Amino acid sequence: MSELRQDITTKEWVIVAPERGKRPQGRSKAKAAAADELPDRDAECPFCPGNESKTPTEVFRIPNPDKPSDWSVRVIPNRFAALVPEGDTTRKEEGPFFRKMIGYGIHEVIIDSPSHNTPLALMPYEQVERVLTAYQERYNVIKKDREINHITIFKNVGWTAGTSLAHPHSQLVATPIMTIYYHRKFDVALDYYADMGRCLYCDLIKYNLEKGRNRVIAETAEFIVVHPYASRVPYETWIFPKMHCASFGLFPDTYFTELAQVLKDVAFCLYQALDNPDYNLVIDSTTTHDEDDPYYHWHIRIIPRLSTIAGFEMGSGIYITPARPEDTAEHMKQVAGSCPDDMCIAFSK
Amino acid sequence: MSELRQDITTKEWVIVAPERGKRPQGRSKAKAAAADELPDRDAECPFCPGNESKTPTEVFRIPNPDKPSDWSVRVIPNRFAALVPEGDTTRKEEGPFFRKMIGYGIHEVIIDSPSHNTPLALMPYEQVERVLTAYQERYNVIKKDREINHITIFKNVGWTAGTSLAHPHSQLVATPIMTIYYHRKFDVALDYYADMGRCLYCDLIKYNLEKGRNRVIAETAEFIVVHPYASRVPYETWIFPKMHCASFGLFPDTYFTELAQVLKDVAFCLYQALDNPDYNLVIDSTTTHDEDDPYYHWHIRIIPRLSTIAGFEMGSGIYITPARPEDTAEHMKQVAGSCPDDMCIAFSK
Repeated sequence: MSELRQDITTKEWVIVAPERGKRPQGRSKAKAAAADELPDRDAECPFCPGNESKTPTEVFRIPNPDKPSDWSVRVIPNRFAALVPEGDTTRKEEGPFFRKMIGYGIHEVIIDSPSHNTPLALMPYEQVERVLTAYQERYNVIKKDREINHITIFKNVGWTAGTSLAHPHSQLVATPIMTIYYHRKFDVALDYYADMGRCLYCDLIKYNLEKGRNRVIAETAEFIVVHPYASRVPYETWIFPKMHCASFGLFPDTYFTELAQVLKDVAFCLYQALDNPDYNLVIDSTTTHDEDDPYYHWHIRIIPRLSTIAGFEMGSGIYITPARPEDTAEHMKQVAGSCPDDMCIAFSK
Repeated sequence: MSELRQDITTKEWVIVAPERGKRPQGRSKAKAAAADELPDRDAECPFCPGNESKTPTEVFRIPNPDKPSDWSVRVIPNRFAALVPEGDTTRKEEGPFFRKMIGYGIHEVIIDSPSHNTPLALMPYEQVERVLTAYQERYNVIKKDREINHITIFKNVGWTAGTSLAHPHSQLVATPIMTIYYHRKFDVALDYYADMGRCLYCDLIKYNLEKGRNRVIAETAEFIVVHPYASRVPYETWIFPKMHCASFGLFPDTYFTELAQVLKDVAFCLYQALDNPDYNLVIDSTTTHDEDDPYYHWHIRIIPRLSTIAGFEMGSGIYITPARPEDTAEHMKQVAGSCPDDMCIAFSK
């Protein structure tokens, strides 16, 4: 049984999860095989079709539209879950300084597709849309549990980004606490709203479109793709919906066809620009208890892992990046402009 | 010329430093050779004796006590400095959302010893004391620059911890801003002081000694070594001075003999317990503009890098650790108890 503990000096919560120590390859430092060196099916892979019995019982699937008895996306509980939905979220005080609670929560794996060797960057647009649909479906089911406060959906792509299995997959962690990263961003956005009466992100999107065009990689009807002014790492990429919407769970799924195009195009351009980089992807959303707030604005962050997070970053929280976002955005636009006509369809070329 | 930019959504500052892209091996993912596979001198290493002309002009040295024409610790400007002391720290607004300033600051390298293959864990106690003396000497010289607000001293040990040169060394980065990590900790400590009228850390140290003994690895006359209640990673280790002192710069150097013993013993026990792990070490200190404040309490944090920082940590700020600090502390105590009589002299055995 895991537990959540709070650091009195930073107010950060930490998940202490002994089960996680049993994961396969969790400490491997080996470089992953490139996608084109992997087979389309791997008999040993628990996420490949035919091996469904090797995973915990599936909680959701999207059938293959051409063959409904097969699946195209599958969601399962994480076998090495950091949190499980058992017990309650009562805080326990261990003296005046130490606060903890049972490791209540939900930890799921979204298997992005049946293909063992097709990363997001090379996936058909329709498949990316199915992945987004699965994300939102699980988000909206899990948020009904009122012990849950916050849902983080993310991807670890490549070994240096923390993955332990090569088969393309995503993860969802639902916590009984708001994350400290969200808490900080919420505080900033709330202050802005108190000052200006408007959503910080709505204003930031408008301003980027007016004055920050040299960092805007793409604008579609409903989304913008930008390398942020203070990118923490080279090629950090944010995808914003233009319409105000605090929660990913409330975002109209009628826009998912367009979002899938944008997301796949971004992943493809990063794949081309950086030769299949390791990266993390995170969906930043508001808490599940305050979904239609006027302050926050859900978005996607993609964080390439080109260099190591070293002592200065760990100790100070300040990132040192060798690249200007204006330059990396220009490179991404060049890559998008030179790709085949049936790729980067969401990007103006 | 680098610059500092602020992220409007998080208030984090980022250092954009194109020079850093030119570092040797900065993107290498290769595993380091173990210390015992390295020579004591490497003719190619710019930090080895005899190659002094390959580094920028030295700013400080501690002579070898047995042969004063040689050095035992050397401090040089970082050849690939993230920040340099040129220009001023006036903030420039680029429209309503973007704030930046010149990359003013100081970035130095402390060469820990002439030996290419002797890490902190295996260094003589006297040499560790000289390293601490060099840290404080530079801290106290640099703090006189009133454009500087905060000084971070740190070590990256091993490739996965972000080092780019094998020769044991430390770094110092002086920034014109307080770090966001410190800012958060200061806020928490200030709130505690406002409530209680006492230093949070002084109280936490006392409480750990009274009720948290199962996480206290060592207590000496002036220091305690503890695995914190909410350790973010396995074997995370904090070293606190017992006396209240907000700034590392003001700490009496009469205690450095004892601190060197404690620090070396901790490094040695981690080396034994985890088979020469990669790790980061950071000295957390208050700002250079408010050194004798009653709220903060300088300390050393050591962060072993046994696993990858993945998407959940990047996205949420929540760490998942597979180890309970009570268990890792017990392991460290066993290691300390079984080491030779002339080692771990600071630890009660």
